[in-house]
Amino acid sequence: MKKVRIVLYGVGAVGSLIAKFLLEKEWAEIVGAVDLAKDKIGKDLGTVLGINETLGISISEKIERAVSTKDADIAIHATSSFLKETYPQITSLIEHNLNVISTCEELAYPYFTSPTIAKKIDALAKQHGVTVLGTGINPGFVMDTLVIMLSAACQKIEKIQTVRVIDAATRRLPFQKKIGAGLKIEEFQKRIEKKEITGHVGLVQSIAMIADALGWNIEDILAEPVLPVIAEKPVESRELKVETGRVAGLRQRAKGIVKDEEVIVLDFQAYIGAKEEYDLITINGVPNIEQKIQPCIHGDVGTVAMVTNMIPKIISAPPGLVTMKDLPVPSATLGDVKRHFNRNS
Amino acid sequence: MKKVRIVLYGVGAVGSLIAKFLLEKEWAEIVGAVDLAKDKIGKDLGTVLGINETLGISISEKIERAVSTKDADIAIHATSSFLKETYPQITSLIEHNLNVISTCEELAYPYFTSPTIAKKIDALAKQHGVTVLGTGINPGFVMDTLVIMLSAACQKIEKIQTVRVIDAATRRLPFQKKIGAGLKIEEFQKRIEKKEITGHVGLVQSIAMIADALGWNIEDILAEPVLPVIAEKPVESRELKVETGRVAGLRQRAKGIVKDEEVIVLDFQAYIGAKEEYDLITINGVPNIEQKIQPCIHGDVGTVAMVTNMIPKIISAPPGLVTMKDLPVPSATLGDVKRHFNRNS
Repeated sequence: MKKVRIVLYGVGAVGSLIAKFLLEKEWAEIVGAVDLAKDKIGKDLGTVLGINETLGISISEKIERAVSTKDADIAIHATSSFLKETYPQITSLIEHNLNVISTCEELAYPYFTSPTIAKKIDALAKQHGVTVLGTGINPGFVMDTLVIMLSAACQKIEKIQTVRVIDAATRRLPFQKKIGAGLKIEEFQKRIEKKEITGHVGLVQSIAMIADALGWNIEDILAEPVLPVIAEKPVESRELKVETGRVAGLRQRAKGIVKDEEVIVLDFQAYIGAKEEYDLITINGVPNIEQKIQPCIHGDVGTVAMVTNMIPKIISAPPGLVTMKDLPVPSATLGDVKRHFNRNS
Repeated sequence: MKKVRIVLYGVGAVGSLIAKFLLEKEWAEIVGAVDLAKDKIGKDLGTVLGINETLGISISEKIERAVSTKDADIAIHATSSFLKETYPQITSLIEHNLNVISTCEELAYPYFTSPTIAKKIDALAKQHGVTVLGTGINPGFVMDTLVIMLSAACQKIEKIQTVRVIDAATRRLPFQKKIGAGLKIEEFQKRIEKKEITGHVGLVQSIAMIADALGWNIEDILAEPVLPVIAEKPVESRELKVETGRVAGLRQRAKGIVKDEEVIVLDFQAYIGAKEEYDLITINGVPNIEQKIQPCIHGDVGTVAMVTNMIPKIISAPPGLVTMKDLPVPSATLGDVKRHFNRNS
């Protein structure tokens, strides 16, 4: 089988994890890498990944340089959560006739929050005959696609609630800092105001995707303020200690409104010292469904899996900007990988 | 929106439940009904459904009579678990240019157990430009499609196990009888030998579908003997009592083998007096995933939902015999139903 030729766009924390996993996959070949960080440009990808070999792939500042001599099939894009930043990057990849899978949270379902950008990306992708997808574990799976999946067993649905609780002590230090762990409450609030702490990005996108899949015309999506979770006793991770009364992490909710009712409520909690980690989905309907994944699916591990596992499906998909709800049921890509690529050909 | 014109093939227990649900759906119109039972032929569908109105649809013995004057879009087929019986029925529907969704368990994934029949149905469906799907809650959802979905969050998988435990007291009397509730052990064994009790049909199909989706080349699928679950104390449903020492229901397992390892193990249990009802999926891999739906999704309620909710996706799908793993992520069909039908057009 011809290998899938992959360009990495973004070799940060998540991009590096994806790269290392792709290096293990016999069906994948990394043929180029882009990163904007000055300390990475010009270095060999192997060096930047911290693995014990050079890969003969120099990290470029621009996509033009990364794929000038080699054709690639798909770009794996992992730079920012926000479309404002990723939009020009993604369009440049499309213009190089590359399929794109991105971890950009706002790309997971941009049709509600950024309909103009969504339509532009869709049109450009169709023009270039490539497929673009934003995915990851969340948004992309536990708080949206899995909800959509479970809804299929329901005749009627009144309300959907999901709760994701993460013990931040199990995550990387940058994640712990991103959620404000260890800060005084005033400092947390200040960083929220300055948008240095943004909380989880994607709840609004997840709600919009669920509503679209189910056929609900959403009237409004309310993103509640990001709240600090205060340590009621000293808690700690390997990397940092949180005194009683300081911020252990954060909690945020978003609500989708149909006919004045809160029909979709997503509740995201990430803090050091969470007693239980879980992903909970509750559907009030016919039948009621209560589903729990315990512990919750690890964010980084799951995102690396989702991005990689969607590669065959994106390569086989019709052109355009697609979202998880439009694609065949996702699956692991194990064993005889030819079978993953030959399905729709 | 033009309504979806539906022919019912089989107006038994499950077919009747589907019919009643479809009557509530504004986008659906039942235009014909077929049943082989002498006491139903010639009667009005409303009478057979036991609802307080006539529907102007006479139950026919043959599909030719049911759709002679009216074109239909799709047939909902609910007669038997076994392809041996349903194959000629399904081909007759295809030959009338009808899309087909069937509750036939063996049709959920016939490529492993009945490859020749599967290929024939696929070819015939393509010839007539229609799509054929076997689905339901199980097979079709809790022990296969949902497993495939969850596998997408995994980088590696060593083993998959699912357990479905049903308290038969919550189900219809025919279901309770089908699993042997109330019988003496010897009588249970006799009926197993005579194939009067077949147990749950579909475990082998579910394993084969999971393996295909994940890319595992399955070497063998072992369907273990159906075992009686013996009442350790008196248990009862509304309809029947089971003395201590008698059969309360049954348990059966099937195992998918890859490279001499049991990589997929499905465990189905249905008996009166089960303390807990649940659907459990355990994936040993990176990451490990343990997912529990509690109580388990009700078989009849879920099957009616699955069959109905797949109608828009089957109408939009390319022709051929498809299985759940080939189709877009399933979802409830609520609210603005036009949106469910206009997606891929």
